Amino acid sequence: MIFFDCDYNQGAHPKILEHLASTNWEQTPGYGCDPYCEQARTLIRELCHAPEAGVHFLVGGTQVNATFLNAALRGHQGVVSAATGHIHCHETGAPEAGGHKVLALPTGPEGKLSAAQVDALCAAHYQGSPPPEHMVQPKAVYISHPTENGALYTLAELEALRAVCGRWGLYLYVDGARLGYGLTAPGTDVDLPALARLCDGFTIGGTKCGALFGEALIVTNPEIDRDFRYYIKQGGGMLAKGRLLGLQFLALLEDGLYFTICRQANALADRLAEACRTAWLPEYAPSVTNQRFFIFTEEQMARLSEQYVLSLWEPLPDGRAAYRLCTSWGTAPEAVEALAGDILALGDRP
Amino acid sequence: MIFFDCDYNQGAHPKILEHLASTNWEQTPGYGCDPYCEQARTLIRELCHAPEAGVHFLVGGTQVNATFLNAALRGHQGVVSAATGHIHCHETGAPEAGGHKVLALPTGPEGKLSAAQVDALCAAHYQGSPPPEHMVQPKAVYISHPTENGALYTLAELEALRAVCGRWGLYLYVDGARLGYGLTAPGTDVDLPALARLCDGFTIGGTKCGALFGEALIVTNPEIDRDFRYYIKQGGGMLAKGRLLGLQFLALLEDGLYFTICRQANALADRLAEACRTAWLPEYAPSVTNQRFFIFTEEQMARLSEQYVLSLWEPLPDGRAAYRLCTSWGTAPEAVEALAGDILALGDRP
Amino acid sequence: MIFFDCDYNQGAHPKILEHLASTNWEQTPGYGCDPYCEQARTLIRELCHAPEAGVHFLVGGTQVNATFLNAALRGHQGVVSAATGHIHCHETGAPEAGGHKVLALPTGPEGKLSAAQVDALCAAHYQGSPPPEHMVQPKAVYISHPTENGALYTLAELEALRAVCGRWGLYLYVDGARLGYGLTAPGTDVDLPALARLCDGFTIGGTKCGALFGEALIVTNPEIDRDFRYYIKQGGGMLAKGRLLGLQFLALLEDGLYFTICRQANALADRLAEACRTAWLPEYAPSVTNQRFFIFTEEQMARLSEQYVLSLWEPLPDGRAAYRLCTSWGTAPEAVEALAGDILALGDRP
Amino acid sequence: MIFFDCDYNQGAHPKILEHLASTNWEQTPGYGCDPYCEQARTLIRELCHAPEAGVHFLVGGTQVNATFLNAALRGHQGVVSAATGHIHCHETGAPEAGGHKVLALPTGPEGKLSAAQVDALCAAHYQGSPPPEHMVQPKAVYISHPTENGALYTLAELEALRAVCGRWGLYLYVDGARLGYGLTAPGTDVDLPALARLCDGFTIGGTKCGALFGEALIVTNPEIDRDFRYYIKQGGGMLAKGRLLGLQFLALLEDGLYFTICRQANALADRLAEACRTAWLPEYAPSVTNQRFFIFTEEQMARLSEQYVLSLWEPLPDGRAAYRLCTSWGTAPEAVEALAGDILALGDRP
Repeated sequence: MIFFDCDYNQGAHPKILEHLASTNWEQTPGYGCDPYCEQARTLIRELCHAPEAGVHFLVGGTQVNATFLNAALRGHQGVVSAATGHIHCHETGAPEAGGHKVLALPTGPEGKLSAAQVDALCAAHYQGSPPPEHMVQPKAVYISHPTENGALYTLAELEALRAVCGRWGLYLYVDGARLGYGLTAPGTDVDLPALARLCDGFTIGGTKCGALFGEALIVTNPEIDRDFRYYIKQGGGMLAKGRLLGLQFLALLEDGLYFTICRQANALADRLAEACRTAWLPEYAPSVTNQRFFIFTEEQMARLSEQYVLSLWEPLPDGRAAYRLCTSWGTAPEAVEALAGDILALGDRP
Repeated sequence: MIFFDCDYNQGAHPKILEHLASTNWEQTPGYGCDPYCEQARTLIRELCHAPEAGVHFLVGGTQVNATFLNAALRGHQGVVSAATGHIHCHETGAPEAGGHKVLALPTGPEGKLSAAQVDALCAAHYQGSPPPEHMVQPKAVYISHPTENGALYTLAELEALRAVCGRWGLYLYVDGARLGYGLTAPGTDVDLPALARLCDGFTIGGTKCGALFGEALIVTNPEIDRDFRYYIKQGGGMLAKGRLLGLQFLALLEDGLYFTICRQANALADRLAEACRTAWLPEYAPSVTNQRFFIFTEEQMARLSEQYVLSLWEPLPDGRAAYRLCTSWGTAPEAVEALAGDILALGDRP
Repeated sequence: MIFFDCDYNQGAHPKILEHLASTNWEQTPGYGCDPYCEQARTLIRELCHAPEAGVHFLVGGTQVNATFLNAALRGHQGVVSAATGHIHCHETGAPEAGGHKVLALPTGPEGKLSAAQVDALCAAHYQGSPPPEHMVQPKAVYISHPTENGALYTLAELEALRAVCGRWGLYLYVDGARLGYGLTAPGTDVDLPALARLCDGFTIGGTKCGALFGEALIVTNPEIDRDFRYYIKQGGGMLAKGRLLGLQFLALLEDGLYFTICRQANALADRLAEACRTAWLPEYAPSVTNQRFFIFTEEQMARLSEQYVLSLWEPLPDGRAAYRLCTSWGTAPEAVEALAGDILALGDRP
Repeated sequence: MIFFDCDYNQGAHPKILEHLASTNWEQTPGYGCDPYCEQARTLIRELCHAPEAGVHFLVGGTQVNATFLNAALRGHQGVVSAATGHIHCHETGAPEAGGHKVLALPTGPEGKLSAAQVDALCAAHYQGSPPPEHMVQPKAVYISHPTENGALYTLAELEALRAVCGRWGLYLYVDGARLGYGLTAPGTDVDLPALARLCDGFTIGGTKCGALFGEALIVTNPEIDRDFRYYIKQGGGMLAKGRLLGLQFLALLEDGLYFTICRQANALADRLAEACRTAWLPEYAPSVTNQRFFIFTEEQMARLSEQYVLSLWEPLPDGRAAYRLCTSWGTAPEAVEALAGDILALGDRP
């Protein structure tokens, strides 16, 4: 079987394993206070044009999201999210376990929150009847970029969100679990300095973008960054051998490898999407990143499932279902060619 | 000004004040372990035909809801609620502060959850992709009776909810903050023994139904009732002079006063609704209890607001707004007549 | 039986019942936004010489302590307390349920924390090995005045605590569940303006000092007071008929009744302590307030227990036990005379 | 500088890096559902003689402790621990962040809890005055083996703890962050099957015993194991590429490597302890594992600090301080010889 179901089913880019091996016997301080983490922090600050930002390395996505929210929000405050947002749907209530309600808003198939939606929610909160203290106070906006459905915000959309956050005193947080695929997608005008300028915090995802594991969290708001390491430790996110994280981000970022491998995954996903469109498969949600979403009949999927694993995304009332086709930094081009061919062959039948 | 905005703007039925005064100098043990609480417990168990049920007295509604949920749910479990449910909208995230996500479902204007909705949510949770442990496990259903919008479940609807709860291993909890108005509404087939038979826990609201304050919580599921007093104490709900609660419920329930005064409030609300309908005011949400919801133009409300306070419920896009007209155990019939007259007068203008 | 076991076994001072009765049919806004609460707030600000302070009324002691701590502390911060402190021992982990560790320090029999202890704890936290983020950050000091054992801080001791709190950036919070007895004890130099000047928050206890229930919370630190009502609501402490609290504090404070009745309770406790000392009973913990602690043999207690209920405080290894003798605003002088006589009679036997 | 300050300052045993490299391009399911995790689970169950036990792999120690406690305890329950226990001192209040109080008990220099202590604490909880519900209910016992101070429980001591846990309905949990060093210490009669038989849960530490990172958690109590993966996910402990954990434990356990490398570290620590004793350095806490604790004067430490890093454990009032000397799976024997020689040289001076 060849897996196109997700972007975390292989190990890591070989350069990372080499870094780990070559430094294995060195003795360094623990908990992220080693020279490799420090170098990686410096590099990230440079790439983000954010010389004062806090940079922290955590192991996983649910962990980093919950840690940021716990540090950012007081006990009566919640976070606005798309109803399809990862923190709302697929983190087993980690924000709520920390005491924070997710204020979910409906979105279209792209899974993008709009500034107008956030504005309306805040206006409703403060309009006076009932008094606001009977409701959870909105204090942060969570978006993912790319979204859960692979879509990208434009710079203008992010700026509008930033403006509305400013108007109501909200933090803006971007979950960048797949940020590499977003930053290298054709036509995007969002880059690291823009994120650092517009967000109070955002992540550069490693796990899905070439690392064994690890998310880099950039906290540009010093109010949130103060005492941040307490939250990392309390939340179980302070890796004893923290250098493992610094080393990986160094390997990925020091010469642009992160962007190279993600750009290639996007291109491979393009190849699959092209095949799907050629085979007249309906597109479920528009995406230009490494995740693509198409609708298959049961019979079509039965044929593909003989050799490939795709990810069931949403069963449809008519018996068909939306599936995710996912490439990654480690996807073999030959595998893509094979799948593309078999998708095209689907089109041959009525 | 005459207030029709809510059912908690006056003190208590005089009988309650008399009970407090006549027992004032007695010395009794604290924390609900006094003879009056014990008598009230016995009486409630009799009225509910639930001789084994746990009966607890707490001060307020948010408190009793949060305490029940904290006792019933483990940390990875959430509670299904209508999107208009009080715990979802107007308790400042109290369930989430206890670590529990509210799994909100949309409803019609009545604000009622259906068994089919709960069934579908549970089926989706356990269907396998993603694996259930990535999501909050549904473990309880919260409904209010009457609902936030004054509607009532039928016995058949409650039995269907109970059945679906049984199928998926969920608890059924009924917030009865206005239960007195629900149990005495014309045509209802729900009574206390039915609630005790079908629910794992439910409340008999005092605050809005004639008491100074206080909610009686009946816990019929011994698994939840075990160690329940720890949760009351931890949640700040264990009144030192607990007898104040027992005395009030005795006063209300020992001779049916609770039902008498609530039935009368429903009748007064009928009178208001009749006036509204006669004046061709559109009904926003159907109700047969003490809360009625009608739509007024700005000009109409300006006229009424000279003498009456109603509760803004929902601004409508066309400039009109839905308002709540609320009677209570303490509403003066003359005040109702006055308001009814002035509503009828609204109809005179085009 | 005559009860000397606690100060919350009777109703309320009659003046309070009168206030409730005379205002019963008035219609007022809910949730503490009524004129009576507003008058009580103004009066308390005057008595405290704290015109800017936030004043909030909550129902009970565990509730008010937890609410203050939740509003004051971020998630990685804890509260320093005597190991005998109420929040550490007898609130079923309410601070921890809100996510906050109690950093407990041992004390002598008086149950008083010293400035030096707090200073040493903070110095240890920040000394560097292990780094502070591996430990809970001390951010508040909790004391009770009188302490659990009836002892009082001097003004100089409070000023020293305030100074050490300032040095390390800690809040100072005083649990005044029995404040009335403390402020009227002979020889004390602590008064309401001193508390308002030195503390970030403190309570004026009603439940144990003449009210049916209720604690007034004075928050002098605007950083903590911001959004405070959200915490009250979320914690279940926002009484729908909030005026019940305002009315009670008005009744107690508007003409000094609070101080009169507490001073008398102290005097009655003096009478009991005098009897104990005359009967050569050893004093367990020194107190000049309404709680006194003496050591009785099993045989002595057996004799007293025929007519009186005292509170077992601490079993001693030799079979004797420390008991609390507690008077209150409602204690009958004749009951005190009777008990004093019977205590004196204990001394007649070897 | 040569580091003897901790056992997590190097990478991993080379065999682990080889495993990671050789499997790097394989595609496997995520979240610990891969064949390597499954093999490691089977192997651990065999080694523990616990064919039914749940086996879970988490990244770090604070995370695994908090996750177990969150799954095991209801909201009103706490965990008994030595006052020196890691969860009480050095996890930034992670148990409290999950709502659970640590009920800390004082211990001697070994840091071991006794069955008698736990028994007394439970007896006090249930003795009736005040009623138990005013206090946190003890529901679990946390011990570390070896303890924070390197000491080991005997099998008899564990059995006594198990018995007292049974008597009061408590769970027994063993934090085995350094379990390898404990199981291979000379003279111990505790082995994996004994732990599996006596505990409700325990960990086999990887991070400090040869792995890059990772703790294996064995849950023998099915009541706790039910739904356990929800807690792992919610707590941020579900590694996307879960096989990284399975692979490491396979590498360590499949041929006894875990025990070999830990036994050697103990022997190297023996060599250091022998040198310390020969140099007449006072022993601070007795240990037969990889951590040893000796007291040094300032002048002695100044000399050693020129070449070695040791871990300050406890400053003493007289200016001296206790230090930890720590070996690990990766300690070079030559480094130990060098340090031992320099320690012996300390003894030459008066």
